[in-house]
Amino acid sequence: MKPRIGIIPGDPSGIGPELVAKLLDAAESRESAHVLLIGDDHVFRMGQSQAGVEVALSELCARSVDWTRSEAIPLHAHETIEPESVEIAKVTEASGCSVLENLNLALDFVNDDVIDAIVFGPFNKAAMHMAGLGHDDELHYIAARQGVTGYISELNTLDGLWTSRVTSHIALRDVADKIDEIRILEAIRLIDRTLRRSGVPRPRISVAALNPHAGDGGNFGHEEIEIIAPAVERAAARQLAVDGPWPSDTLFLRAKAGEIDGVVCMYHDQGQIALKLMGFDRGVTVQGGLPFPVTTPAHGTAFDIAGKGVANVGAMQAAFRIACDMVQNWAAST
Amino acid sequence: MKPRIGIIPGDPSGIGPELVAKLLDAAESRESAHVLLIGDDHVFRMGQSQAGVEVALSELCARSVDWTRSEAIPLHAHETIEPESVEIAKVTEASGCSVLENLNLALDFVNDDVIDAIVFGPFNKAAMHMAGLGHDDELHYIAARQGVTGYISELNTLDGLWTSRVTSHIALRDVADKIDEIRILEAIRLIDRTLRRSGVPRPRISVAALNPHAGDGGNFGHEEIEIIAPAVERAAARQLAVDGPWPSDTLFLRAKAGEIDGVVCMYHDQGQIALKLMGFDRGVTVQGGLPFPVTTPAHGTAFDIAGKGVANVGAMQAAFRIACDMVQNWAAST
Repeated sequence: MKPRIGIIPGDPSGIGPELVAKLLDAAESRESAHVLLIGDDHVFRMGQSQAGVEVALSELCARSVDWTRSEAIPLHAHETIEPESVEIAKVTEASGCSVLENLNLALDFVNDDVIDAIVFGPFNKAAMHMAGLGHDDELHYIAARQGVTGYISELNTLDGLWTSRVTSHIALRDVADKIDEIRILEAIRLIDRTLRRSGVPRPRISVAALNPHAGDGGNFGHEEIEIIAPAVERAAARQLAVDGPWPSDTLFLRAKAGEIDGVVCMYHDQGQIALKLMGFDRGVTVQGGLPFPVTTPAHGTAFDIAGKGVANVGAMQAAFRIACDMVQNWAAST
Repeated sequence: MKPRIGIIPGDPSGIGPELVAKLLDAAESRESAHVLLIGDDHVFRMGQSQAGVEVALSELCARSVDWTRSEAIPLHAHETIEPESVEIAKVTEASGCSVLENLNLALDFVNDDVIDAIVFGPFNKAAMHMAGLGHDDELHYIAARQGVTGYISELNTLDGLWTSRVTSHIALRDVADKIDEIRILEAIRLIDRTLRRSGVPRPRISVAALNPHAGDGGNFGHEEIEIIAPAVERAAARQLAVDGPWPSDTLFLRAKAGEIDGVVCMYHDQGQIALKLMGFDRGVTVQGGLPFPVTTPAHGTAFDIAGKGVANVGAMQAAFRIACDMVQNWAAST
């Protein structure tokens, strides 16, 4: 059965609507999944106008959609923002509200088994905070709304290489104190499970060190010896294909060479410097630890090019493909 | 006048001797500078044998060298290790002693105006510590021996992009407390001065943030607002072409695109992850803050391929070229 993918446009002030239009313009996207658009009709049409494409949409109620019927793409119209309130390249409360309302409805559709996964255009965190996000980021918002209590973490992926993080959006000064065996084990398990769900049967995972030169035998920090190595040993004892800790400045060379599938990072920039250098336009973020796939381009709303029709759809296409793969492999790898 | 470059082979157990042989085998190297080899005759010959090249050497006393005369490359023979004590791919006290003795003599030759700069093959820090290095690294050793009291810091460079660091070989947990305005200013001034000496008349310098998303306006750390931005402003007020702080996961994309000449990093792996991904084989380390140029390949002794003749000479050649450039531009930019 084809995966049923709900797509929301993300922040209407950014490049999300344009990316959705470009994604749907490709026959491949329409053929590989049942797509359901969720959001304001005028925002999707604006995106098509920005992208310079025309894709037939068919308004309907998602709960009674007949996937076998329509040539046009089903659109569950949802009024979240007035057309005159859409301000390109601006951080506004109105656009933040639009994002949250569409996200909420998409989550309802997942809960009601209308769709299997969500792909969203880039969000703007500042706008979402103005609109009352009430959590650090969308992952924590989604987890709270869905009652998810297990370990959650953003994962990033590019050309088949995945990264998870033990810490994420915190000050660098606070990183070392947050590194413990339990969190590392959770991050290893999460990336292993997510990789399996993306279609890799036995993921090869390497764990990055925290300190330069992996601590140089204890000369520059003891976390490798006291915390990270024991966590890796525990994970390996559970039959996971995991090794480390490795100095992070050479680990990504091995990753780039295709020798590993996943890297567990200790902090945000450790993985992001590498992934963005390896392919800024193609990176995908996966909201890890949720009971269904949620994916989005790793890049942001790109206000500098919003509305200009020049946004690269590569990451959006990759986000869409990964969501499809994850739906297909979900049951077998849970 | 041609720069006078002293070359020491580095750790005899690693790929240094092979790299020196490959470097000298290229006519370009011999033509662009007066080269003086300093070290054991048998180590240089071993390097040529490993590399599969033959370069004529001429033993002499460096203090009475006549640069205009010889077709062969001058070698100041210096017995530091017995041939039978050279153990390929091993960390030994003997090889550490050899490194330190050659380094000391090369420094004497700089002090006595016999040579203008030093290029060395890769050192092994563990071997040097066994041999009584007594400092964190070779830069601190050299600075102490030479009585340098100003700001010193390792710089890394690759294909015209340079990085300096506010902190280096310390635990990540200690980084944030070491970030202060004075150190950042010193790191900015050092990279500016070093870039000018390498031949860039008005270096464009960007300063990396410490925290993810550059602290996201204070949500993930305050160092950007309270320390880094004021330091950048002070440097800019002194007519340096400097900006920042920028999120480090996108800053290196601008650097890769050639928009800037230098990046001031807050910690070791921030810059090293990026530079090594951008070209592991070609990176060069410059010992910054010394009163003469000292350069070396950024890679290590590479014990996994030592003695096999397959080492890539690219970084060694780049280290040599940079030393030559720095000698040529030194006086004009001091």
